[in-house]
Amino acid sequence: MWLYDELLRIVGDAERVSVNGAVLEQHSKGISYHSPRMPDVVVFPVSKEEVSRIMRFANENKVAVVPFGAGSSLEGHIIPLNGGISLDFTLMNEIISVRPDDFIVTVQPGVTRNQLNQALKKYGLFFPVDPGADATIGGMTATNASGTNTVKYGVMRDQVLGLELVLADGSSIRTGGYSYKSSAGYNLTGLFVGSEGTLGVFTEIILKLQGIPETTIDIKATFPSIEAAGIAATVLLKAGLPIGKIELVDQKTIQAVNAFKNTSYREEPTLFMEFSGSEPEVTNSLEIVQEIIKDEQCVTFEFENDSIKRAQLWEARHQAALAIIAANPGKGHMVTDVCVPLSELSDALQYTRKIVDQYGIDAVIFGHVGDGNYHAVFSVDTQDEEHMKQVEEVHTQIVQYALSKGGTCTGEHGIGLGKKKFLQEEHGDTLSIMKGIKTMVDPNNILNPGKIFDNVPLSAPFELK
Amino acid sequence: MWLYDELLRIVGDAERVSVNGAVLEQHSKGISYHSPRMPDVVVFPVSKEEVSRIMRFANENKVAVVPFGAGSSLEGHIIPLNGGISLDFTLMNEIISVRPDDFIVTVQPGVTRNQLNQALKKYGLFFPVDPGADATIGGMTATNASGTNTVKYGVMRDQVLGLELVLADGSSIRTGGYSYKSSAGYNLTGLFVGSEGTLGVFTEIILKLQGIPETTIDIKATFPSIEAAGIAATVLLKAGLPIGKIELVDQKTIQAVNAFKNTSYREEPTLFMEFSGSEPEVTNSLEIVQEIIKDEQCVTFEFENDSIKRAQLWEARHQAALAIIAANPGKGHMVTDVCVPLSELSDALQYTRKIVDQYGIDAVIFGHVGDGNYHAVFSVDTQDEEHMKQVEEVHTQIVQYALSKGGTCTGEHGIGLGKKKFLQEEHGDTLSIMKGIKTMVDPNNILNPGKIFDNVPLSAPFELK
Repeated sequence: MWLYDELLRIVGDAERVSVNGAVLEQHSKGISYHSPRMPDVVVFPVSKEEVSRIMRFANENKVAVVPFGAGSSLEGHIIPLNGGISLDFTLMNEIISVRPDDFIVTVQPGVTRNQLNQALKKYGLFFPVDPGADATIGGMTATNASGTNTVKYGVMRDQVLGLELVLADGSSIRTGGYSYKSSAGYNLTGLFVGSEGTLGVFTEIILKLQGIPETTIDIKATFPSIEAAGIAATVLLKAGLPIGKIELVDQKTIQAVNAFKNTSYREEPTLFMEFSGSEPEVTNSLEIVQEIIKDEQCVTFEFENDSIKRAQLWEARHQAALAIIAANPGKGHMVTDVCVPLSELSDALQYTRKIVDQYGIDAVIFGHVGDGNYHAVFSVDTQDEEHMKQVEEVHTQIVQYALSKGGTCTGEHGIGLGKKKFLQEEHGDTLSIMKGIKTMVDPNNILNPGKIFDNVPLSAPFELK
Repeated sequence: MWLYDELLRIVGDAERVSVNGAVLEQHSKGISYHSPRMPDVVVFPVSKEEVSRIMRFANENKVAVVPFGAGSSLEGHIIPLNGGISLDFTLMNEIISVRPDDFIVTVQPGVTRNQLNQALKKYGLFFPVDPGADATIGGMTATNASGTNTVKYGVMRDQVLGLELVLADGSSIRTGGYSYKSSAGYNLTGLFVGSEGTLGVFTEIILKLQGIPETTIDIKATFPSIEAAGIAATVLLKAGLPIGKIELVDQKTIQAVNAFKNTSYREEPTLFMEFSGSEPEVTNSLEIVQEIIKDEQCVTFEFENDSIKRAQLWEARHQAALAIIAANPGKGHMVTDVCVPLSELSDALQYTRKIVDQYGIDAVIFGHVGDGNYHAVFSVDTQDEEHMKQVEEVHTQIVQYALSKGGTCTGEHGIGLGKKKFLQEEHGDTLSIMKGIKTMVDPNNILNPGKIFDNVPLSAPFELK
């Protein structure tokens, strides 16, 4: 095949250019319900120079390029809609430099979150963004990922100080740098973070780090209703406590976990929390939480500071998505990702449960209360058109509810394929600026085409010659 | 005058369109050494619709528009280089809505920082970004301002959740929204924040708020050398303490303050700190600071928790810039604003003092240790060409030192006029993208032309007709 031959010529190593069926298949999808599509070739670059040569070639020949990290995207980001090249960063997984006194690390995009935290341990440091999956830093940067730690430490965009990128034409640029803040020109770092592989390909990422807290305590509290749990959360947030995590899980989700794990967690709306910091600070927070929660109809209250017991305490939360997936083998799963103002979260969760139940869709629902972001995870039968139409209706209603409250269609997963129509609804008046930027830096539309917004589809590359 | 007549026709209120000499003069400069230039007309809009009509008119007639807030820019942002319209937001100073349960406020751009905090007090909330001056939120957003609170709460860009803007062609758009995070498309909010009035004019700004901490304690510690103070600061930062502020002031700066205020502060390198939060947390932090600092050659150590005494304790820091200005009446002042990785700060401060002394320039030097950002404030004689050449040489050497350490030429003041050549040096490889964005959204280059980068100068507008 022409494309394979050309890439082999560029890379010079048959081990790192693949048209093997299993490899193509692995690069045809993320973790989502979207229809898979195989790339024509998978390439595993090892250096910026190689990425640059591949991009130059792809641009000249108008071949689509889709960056690939751990494959844990929930919105179809890594599906090569138009075939072409899947650019797999597995081999670019070097932690380039740790600067412990600066609280800064520089990594290649293929480094995974767990790999990074393992390497940072000996410095007493850690990287706080935790989207659940052991995603790559490149993928997390591309989607502006966040997760349970965000209420304390912020989203991915808050951590990225600088980037080295290769643009569509193969040129290499650097944005940002090693300082903690900068007002030097337009914020291109923040623009490339969250651009979902459509504006450039990361080859180096400079990240801010955090000191590992001295003490961590985890708390689980159950409530008679979602309202009561929501109100308790709001009061806790308003108390100015240094909350590390605060997650709300609804009753039916706990039921699903119990069914899946054969556990007997109390089937009530549950708040999971974490506090970390110095010992006196954490102890003080715990006391205040107990004090506050007593007045907020709390039914049960547990806390743990031992690391194993802490993990057990969080089990019902962490198993939530798995419960619905395991209960529905062979099904795809769809994850909603709206984010609303804090005070709207408890109503939004109730609305979501009501809609989901009305449509008779199996779902677990849990929320990052500190950010107003929550997920409904549905098990879907992608072969059943009528069912998929209903699922899309539910998704649309959840998003429209969030938008009507000033919220967003995606808090942390990105637009990808599944939320393009919602982006139109949410930011229609700025889409022309977004598309203008895209066209300026990628005039041939080779970088992850068809993601974030629809684009003129490219022909399959080998038909071009 | 044609321009006056046209604007009066648009605004319909002679009180809000001015060609009065004193008003033009007031809008000819910020607080900096840059040569003033008067606008042709000053307009005081009262609504988005009016801003929109003014922009449409200016765009059709290729008249430059320079947004104006409190006039406290340190980099010449508000100087109408090409004349035209100074768009003064003084009358758009409404706090549109406070949402205490969401920790969100929506303001018009002319609201000042102090006005906002005054209004928020009754909710137990505050807006944390403190650049020193009582700047407008619009101006702070335009320069991505920060200040002493940044080590704890982040920069302006971290607070802005959404914007309503009028573009050069008069169209109105909204970016972001009322949710705490979003991955919906390109991060246009973060692009417009820090765009220095060159991409659009803010008409509404949505900000994140913070709870007022229960307890605040301020600390002052002196050291035998800048090295010792710098090392102490690094150890404190590494200890994972929840530092609210940490500022380093050099010995000669304290001398300048003593001479100016007739005070007798110890003339030694001094660290100023603040801790805030719950009482047990703050007490614990204070104890740890004392413990750490004892081992770091600390000479004197004071702390205060009473609000008046806390202000007194910070006096030497807050008077630093005033000391140099008051001692040099009639002079301009130039403020360097580099930011370096944390571990480089103490060396950078020493390097800066050495260079400044070598050139015999009067200067005070102080740094935001938690961010690696510091300022040298020079008193300059703008009429003396030889002297200005020397001052520019010093500034250039300070910036080049910072860039050689991976830092930036501006941590919080912006590029404006005075740092354009440094932007070329720092981000030359991305300037074409920045300029491409500028050209896309402002093809006639009417929005604050000549700021951030050089642009084709516009003719004076009344010569166009």
